[in-house]
Amino acid sequence: MEKYCHGGDIYRNKVKIDFSVNTNPLGISESVKRAVIDGYNGFGVYPDSEYELLRNSIAKKEKVLPSNVVCSNGAAEMIYAVIRAVMPKRAILPMPTFSEYKRALKSVGCDITYYKLKEDNGFKIDQGFIDASRGMDMTFICNPNNPTGAVADRKIIENIKCMCIVDECFADFSQTYSMKGTFPVIKAFTKTYAMAGLRLGYMICDEDFAKKVREQMPMWNVSSPAQAAGIAALKEDKYINESINLIKKERKYLTDELLGMGYKVFPSEANFILFKGKKGLYEKLLQSGILIRKCENFIGLNEQFYRIAVKTHEENIELIRKLGEISG
Amino acid sequence: MEKYCHGGDIYRNKVKIDFSVNTNPLGISESVKRAVIDGYNGFGVYPDSEYELLRNSIAKKEKVLPSNVVCSNGAAEMIYAVIRAVMPKRAILPMPTFSEYKRALKSVGCDITYYKLKEDNGFKIDQGFIDASRGMDMTFICNPNNPTGAVADRKIIENIKCMCIVDECFADFSQTYSMKGTFPVIKAFTKTYAMAGLRLGYMICDEDFAKKVREQMPMWNVSSPAQAAGIAALKEDKYINESINLIKKERKYLTDELLGMGYKVFPSEANFILFKGKKGLYEKLLQSGILIRKCENFIGLNEQFYRIAVKTHEENIELIRKLGEISG
Repeated sequence: MEKYCHGGDIYRNKVKIDFSVNTNPLGISESVKRAVIDGYNGFGVYPDSEYELLRNSIAKKEKVLPSNVVCSNGAAEMIYAVIRAVMPKRAILPMPTFSEYKRALKSVGCDITYYKLKEDNGFKIDQGFIDASRGMDMTFICNPNNPTGAVADRKIIENIKCMCIVDECFADFSQTYSMKGTFPVIKAFTKTYAMAGLRLGYMICDEDFAKKVREQMPMWNVSSPAQAAGIAALKEDKYINESINLIKKERKYLTDELLGMGYKVFPSEANFILFKGKKGLYEKLLQSGILIRKCENFIGLNEQFYRIAVKTHEENIELIRKLGEISG
Repeated sequence: MEKYCHGGDIYRNKVKIDFSVNTNPLGISESVKRAVIDGYNGFGVYPDSEYELLRNSIAKKEKVLPSNVVCSNGAAEMIYAVIRAVMPKRAILPMPTFSEYKRALKSVGCDITYYKLKEDNGFKIDQGFIDASRGMDMTFICNPNNPTGAVADRKIIENIKCMCIVDECFADFSQTYSMKGTFPVIKAFTKTYAMAGLRLGYMICDEDFAKKVREQMPMWNVSSPAQAAGIAALKEDKYINESINLIKKERKYLTDELLGMGYKVFPSEANFILFKGKKGLYEKLLQSGILIRKCENFIGLNEQFYRIAVKTHEENIELIRKLGEISG
């Protein structure tokens, strides 16, 4: 197996609180769990390969036609399928960003140019990216960006000179603009509804591209539990509003506390925060059962950078307390 | 969406008994359902991307090393990943066979030669296939073959002149030989344990190929419910033995009855039967809520061919009764 390079490895670490994954701090809702459990009759039969009910629900929520929706086994599968539908020879990626774009582009032998984002600029995408995108076949813009939480200026995104896939997996928490209608947009139930174990992502795009991408995915790629969960999740308006409020409040709390301890904190519009401190924080926190994301394997970052999820107040207090102890 | 061309579309048909899919007639076992439901805490967190416990269980059962096992979101995902790891320019497929090989090969722009199997020979793979495979980059052998149920002579498979992937998704019911150790072998929990809704397939192959294929699959491709279900399923020895006995007995019952009604029946070693009759049987049975697989979209077959799953005795009696009424 290749080396695992993401957060969330609670399987090979002793973890009491996991700050390393960016899912909804409220956790999976009862109605979503219930929908999976009540759907046990669906475990034994093939899932609907056209996921008709789910697709209709997503279309309604996103105010598009069902033919503009493609679903996937987590957003990760969508990234691979999109790349296979395009088969780019040259791609450009702003760095740092989510590493699966790179892994997926490499899987088709694509040549990748890394565009280094500036720390001074809060790792925001700058004007220079527009020129750099000329002559490229493809790019991925994660907006808000993982791991920085930065939202790009809309004007820059609009002027990108190559095929652009916008990953808005964290956008539901940020209440910022969407590029839906201009570029293909990837979203995930994983993060918004904290249902990472069930695997469900989707893309909103024009019908032709939707068809091409669907051809790159196997039949029955969305499991029955994922379909049941997705339909139930889309009814959770109250849960989403609560999450947005909680994240806003707690992001401020964490930011203020981190700044107070002397850490450099990057402005985030997402449900996670990138900060810069001393080497070794990851290991020290893990000794107390707190898992954070060390960012040394993000191109453009190093061992001084860490990403933490915004979690519930009790959990955030615990993290800050431990960090205080470590900082002395 | 492209046109759906498989069995099991219970979502757009009114179906009381589904003979169109080839899953275990005993249905999903209670322990597997229970494992999914009891694992609800796993719905909200990322699945183990290395599916370590599941991989160890499969390795133990298959008597190989964990590094010889790759898992997938149903066997369908494995077919796509294998093809992307090989990137064949020219492939050969015996026909009729499972249509996902064709769909997946086409998704990478591969040129496909169809090798027509002879009805007179029960659609078994013949000696001529060996020569036809020369100069090809790849082939898939489904053994027992879907939709015919025929098992190929081992000597023929061993002598194939190109890279050969053997799909043994139905082999657990047939108790025939396995090509494990000689060629990469694909298997599925879907059929053997009737857990099609949960999506879980795997491949046994050498470590290098396993790595290459894994690189073509997204992270977290095996959901938490699928991992929990797979681990529970592998403990179900009694269930498997009962299934094998039931299928043997009921396959004979169905074959005899079909022959008695004057249908041409093709000898099957799997949990399904291909037979030849008059056009229109599919529609007539569906009027009574019985869904069978019409085989006109299998290359090499036509509208006179039908595939039925071997199900429980009560269900099989019902099918035979209806067929009797239709045949008059």
